[in-house]
Amino acid sequence: MKAKIAVLAGDGVGREIVPEAVKVLKVVAEKFGHTFDFAYGDVGGQAIDKVGVPLPQDTLALAKQSDAVLLGAVGGPKWEGLEYSLRPERALLGLREQLGLFANLRPAKLYEVLADASTLKKEVIEGIDILVIRELTGGIYFGKPKGIEALPNGGERGVNTEVYTTEEIRRIAKVAFEAARRRRKKVTSVDKANVLESSELWRRVVIAVQKDFPDVELNHIYVDNAAMQLVRNPRQFDVMLCNNIFGDILSDEAAMLTGSIGMLPSASIGAQVGLFEPIHGSAPDIAGKNIANPIATIASAAMLLSYAFKLDREAHAIEEAIVKTLDLGYRTKDIHSAGSRLVGTTDMGEAVVRNL
Amino acid sequence: MKAKIAVLAGDGVGREIVPEAVKVLKVVAEKFGHTFDFAYGDVGGQAIDKVGVPLPQDTLALAKQSDAVLLGAVGGPKWEGLEYSLRPERALLGLREQLGLFANLRPAKLYEVLADASTLKKEVIEGIDILVIRELTGGIYFGKPKGIEALPNGGERGVNTEVYTTEEIRRIAKVAFEAARRRRKKVTSVDKANVLESSELWRRVVIAVQKDFPDVELNHIYVDNAAMQLVRNPRQFDVMLCNNIFGDILSDEAAMLTGSIGMLPSASIGAQVGLFEPIHGSAPDIAGKNIANPIATIASAAMLLSYAFKLDREAHAIEEAIVKTLDLGYRTKDIHSAGSRLVGTTDMGEAVVRNL
Ligand SMILES: CC(C)[C@H](C(=O)O)[C@@H](O)C(=O)O
Ligand SMILES: CC(C)[C@H](C(=O)O)[C@@H](O)C(=O)O
Repeated sequence: MKAKIAVLAGDGVGREIVPEAVKVLKVVAEKFGHTFDFAYGDVGGQAIDKVGVPLPQDTLALAKQSDAVLLGAVGGPKWEGLEYSLRPERALLGLREQLGLFANLRPAKLYEVLADASTLKKEVIEGIDILVIRELTGGIYFGKPKGIEALPNGGERGVNTEVYTTEEIRRIAKVAFEAARRRRKKVTSVDKANVLESSELWRRVVIAVQKDFPDVELNHIYVDNAAMQLVRNPRQFDVMLCNNIFGDILSDEAAMLTGSIGMLPSASIGAQVGLFEPIHGSAPDIAGKNIANPIATIASAAMLLSYAFKLDREAHAIEEAIVKTLDLGYRTKDIHSAGSRLVGTTDMGEAVVRNL
Repeated sequence: MKAKIAVLAGDGVGREIVPEAVKVLKVVAEKFGHTFDFAYGDVGGQAIDKVGVPLPQDTLALAKQSDAVLLGAVGGPKWEGLEYSLRPERALLGLREQLGLFANLRPAKLYEVLADASTLKKEVIEGIDILVIRELTGGIYFGKPKGIEALPNGGERGVNTEVYTTEEIRRIAKVAFEAARRRRKKVTSVDKANVLESSELWRRVVIAVQKDFPDVELNHIYVDNAAMQLVRNPRQFDVMLCNNIFGDILSDEAAMLTGSIGMLPSASIGAQVGLFEPIHGSAPDIAGKNIANPIATIASAAMLLSYAFKLDREAHAIEEAIVKTLDLGYRTKDIHSAGSRLVGTTDMGEAVVRNL
């Protein structure tokens, strides 16, 4: 096939890890007879530096005209003095909203050879394979009214609105049930229905959608209990279906259980163009030193092939190359331990390419 | 001193663990020369069964006329078919609102002898001693508008409102800084200021309040990162200051790190009358079997003495009795392991009394 991939490296380690993923994609294209055109754009802090905004019109246009977007990371101390509405992270919210990326898929899967990196006991995390499905364009992230207003008493009042419609819940629930069908057939829907009416509706709609997926088991869990159970017994979960803010929190918690967030990819899908990025941030403290772990981004490229282009064989080839590279002992600093082979960002990328 | 304590045992194991805490309080009264009057009230499911509502007027009046409230737990499968607005848990929200309990203190402290019960590696959790301070009468739990409304297209729309005023943030921040002063002098304020305006105001006000506490260090962390860091390195935290919903989630996650939530108490304070309860629930599956762990409730009684009556010496005596009882090897089923002495609820209560 022939496809156009928008490449938005962004800030910090994004600029080092994304080229490694592009390298891998190029080799895959060659091996499997595809043509991928890569088109580069600015995003986040470096876009602010260049043109004054975190998500330039050009970048948005580029993303919309592409078949998929590969993103690195955004943000850094340089831009932390800016007003929140102008900061690098706003580019992510803009891309999600403008591209209609309502479904965020965040796998928290343990690479067995890295089990020791977890802060949890081996017997607790062995074999965990959780897919957090997070609603990404609704809820408290985008609901109105929102803002800060002055009060007559001289104080202020900060407001955000958590809001979900039947239709918004239905479409994300379908994504969760469909994903569960290709996995262990179990959806755990996370809510706070004992307190929040928005969650009460969420639960009701999820129950209705499940009727079309009688082969998939559905459970409900309150978000506070979910945060507990992830620590107590993470293996109980297959697909976790969450609203935007609960998914933000729980997907990060789930990721950290594996002990190696430098390994974890994500996919954001919904309308035409999907966006794929590592779950970790721009890590300014280690940027520019050729020590960042490119595997999360390379794994995101694999998700891109699978979700955006339905190239499952190719995606699988990348995943196998990652496992093989790890099995051969290659480790970047974040996952390094005695007895393994410490390599830099580019070496790790090349090792994956060699093992393709 | 002479004081009146309202005792609301509630449902499930609440009915077994609360009497043990009362037993302990009676012995403390005797030993230290105080007079505690205990007045009993209905709450939760058993109140629904008796009079049709989870928080009867009588119970609320009793609580208001007391000097402190000791609560067990509410809820159970029997009442899960009810509308959310009529369920046992609503009694908690009602008590918080009506008693003005805006500050919820949830210590997540490891009892060293129980470190093995944690799912985390010993070297990660050893010595953790976190105090989550959760705002309890504001935010998305109580904000308006809220509800579910019909849409013209036949669907529905569920809404809740996250709202905080300067004054609400200021008073809870003060509680956090004051608590930190008596501890390791470090407050980590949790928010999502990169997305939510309500959090932006939260952060701004917390920074302003810190000016009056120059001896206390203040850090800010995004809630998703906080959920991660609790797993990665929980020892970094002293006091965590959270809004209502973030505190609900993170205090449960922090509690589970210790591996023994049957040990953890909580205090809810604000206006005249404080409320003290274990953080665990009514555990209907083990209720009525004399196997529930009463220690969380006994420790809540200690918090009651300290926070409601300023009887720190007496509170300390209870805490020491708990540690001694554990050191002697007494364990209820939830914390039992080979080599220790398995006892029931009442035996554990009596053992603590003996070690007072
Ligand atoms: C940077 C921030 C806006 C973003 C979010 O909250 O969605 C990030 O935490 C994420 O999860 O992608
Ligand atoms: C039962 C529920 C309403 C309550 C809450 O969310 O506050 C509980 O989870 C708690 O933390 O005390």
